[in-house]
Amino acid sequence: MPGYPFLKGHGTENDFVLLPDHDGSVHGGLTDEEMAARVRALCDRRAGIGGDGVLRVVRRGADEGVRWFMDYRNADGSVSEMCGNGIRVFAQHLFDEGLADPREPLPVDTRDGVKTITVEADGQLTVDMGVPQVLGETKVAVGDHAWPAQHVDMGNPHAVAFVESLDRHGPVGPLLDEPDYDHAVYPAGVNVEFVVRRGDGHVAMRVHERGSGETRSCGTGACAVAVAAAVADGRGPGSTYRVDLPGGTLTIAWTADDRILMTGPAVVVARGTTGL
Amino acid sequence: MPGYPFLKGHGTENDFVLLPDHDGSVHGGLTDEEMAARVRALCDRRAGIGGDGVLRVVRRGADEGVRWFMDYRNADGSVSEMCGNGIRVFAQHLFDEGLADPREPLPVDTRDGVKTITVEADGQLTVDMGVPQVLGETKVAVGDHAWPAQHVDMGNPHAVAFVESLDRHGPVGPLLDEPDYDHAVYPAGVNVEFVVRRGDGHVAMRVHERGSGETRSCGTGACAVAVAAAVADGRGPGSTYRVDLPGGTLTIAWTADDRILMTGPAVVVARGTTGL
Repeated sequence: MPGYPFLKGHGTENDFVLLPDHDGSVHGGLTDEEMAARVRALCDRRAGIGGDGVLRVVRRGADEGVRWFMDYRNADGSVSEMCGNGIRVFAQHLFDEGLADPREPLPVDTRDGVKTITVEADGQLTVDMGVPQVLGETKVAVGDHAWPAQHVDMGNPHAVAFVESLDRHGPVGPLLDEPDYDHAVYPAGVNVEFVVRRGDGHVAMRVHERGSGETRSCGTGACAVAVAAAVADGRGPGSTYRVDLPGGTLTIAWTADDRILMTGPAVVVARGTTGL
Repeated sequence: MPGYPFLKGHGTENDFVLLPDHDGSVHGGLTDEEMAARVRALCDRRAGIGGDGVLRVVRRGADEGVRWFMDYRNADGSVSEMCGNGIRVFAQHLFDEGLADPREPLPVDTRDGVKTITVEADGQLTVDMGVPQVLGETKVAVGDHAWPAQHVDMGNPHAVAFVESLDRHGPVGPLLDEPDYDHAVYPAGVNVEFVVRRGDGHVAMRVHERGSGETRSCGTGACAVAVAAAVADGRGPGSTYRVDLPGGTLTIAWTADDRILMTGPAVVVARGTTGL
């Protein structure tokens, strides 16, 4: 099959098609529109390979040790800044291929700046997700049920609501439609997280992502949930939460110096060639 | 990546993972349960590669010229007899690889017996789907809306209802739930097709498959729809219908000798290695 190389991988079931294109010779000549069309074709779950997005793997000059750029696009072809689950898969691919040393922190350039990934003793990957902003109380609703929610910004906007149950047959429901939210607070839309407590420092969540609907995992959503839980628990920087999502578990540490470190799994499951 | 070879392809967006295993040395040693688990892992659209089913490509002894067996499983791991969209993808793979001659009819063994595939001048593939059974009138309903339906058996049971509109905002709706049907007529469930006319010999359909929900395409469903349309039009054997599905178009010929020939596209879009 004539074509170009690809890999497929996921982090907590947020899945991606990876496109190695170190020197830009494979996809670099495409216009923005052509690349968007290729991403849509690749991410099509029936006619293509399927994925929530595409991670193009591009080599950087070795300025200040940053050797790789994650060119991330959503499944609809649009360019995006960053993806916390995607960058772990991106890093795992570099480690798998011997393109980066897992014993050292790996800086990866993104449209949201340089992010640093480190490998934990159990093989999970930790990403520095930056500084959270806690912006006060708002509210969200599904049908007739409304809940107070914490407004947290992780570079993108979140509304985190603590609820009685995540059951699809309960008040949160199947989340087929976008939850209601305050459009004055979130003029560009919002990711809505529904959370229950599972124990001390342990919560579970479901998420409705703006533009995507309910997903199996949302990295920034898990970070926002941990921050909202810490605030609700009267804690703050210096606390760690385990966050269970439908697609797996992430561990979120809010460090004493006010940064969010997200730790979770990443795996590459297939590699090959496609002409899409 | 250690693992085994795979390909991915689709026919009218009914998509499959193909597993070349000519002499049974790759997957043949697995127990039924192990193979079912592998199929589920492969078909998982987030953690795996993703597909509606798996087509294992097995070589047969050359008895009576039948050299290939299509070992088909559904995405849930269960063994299945036949798949009209799948067998076109299976045949296209053999032609792509030079394992079969596209200028000759290709017999493929399945759990439903030997099926013969021929290549049309435009590259589409035709499958002989066997003899239909027209079993009389029944009815189906979605919410408050009920329609008369034709009971057609294509080896599996169908209820075909002509409706005013296929619009998701119309009476047929988004088909999130199983339509109501007569459980005395269909004790093992039924595939329900909703049909509108587009012109003479030309219809469009949506389908709710038992156990799967709404799908982009159903080969036997398109056959049942063409048969029901021919019956409604006072035709019968010796008529041909174009059937538009959400995932593409199939052409269904009901031959003078009472067999159903289904013609449609098939394409393999990726190949590689996986350790799933």
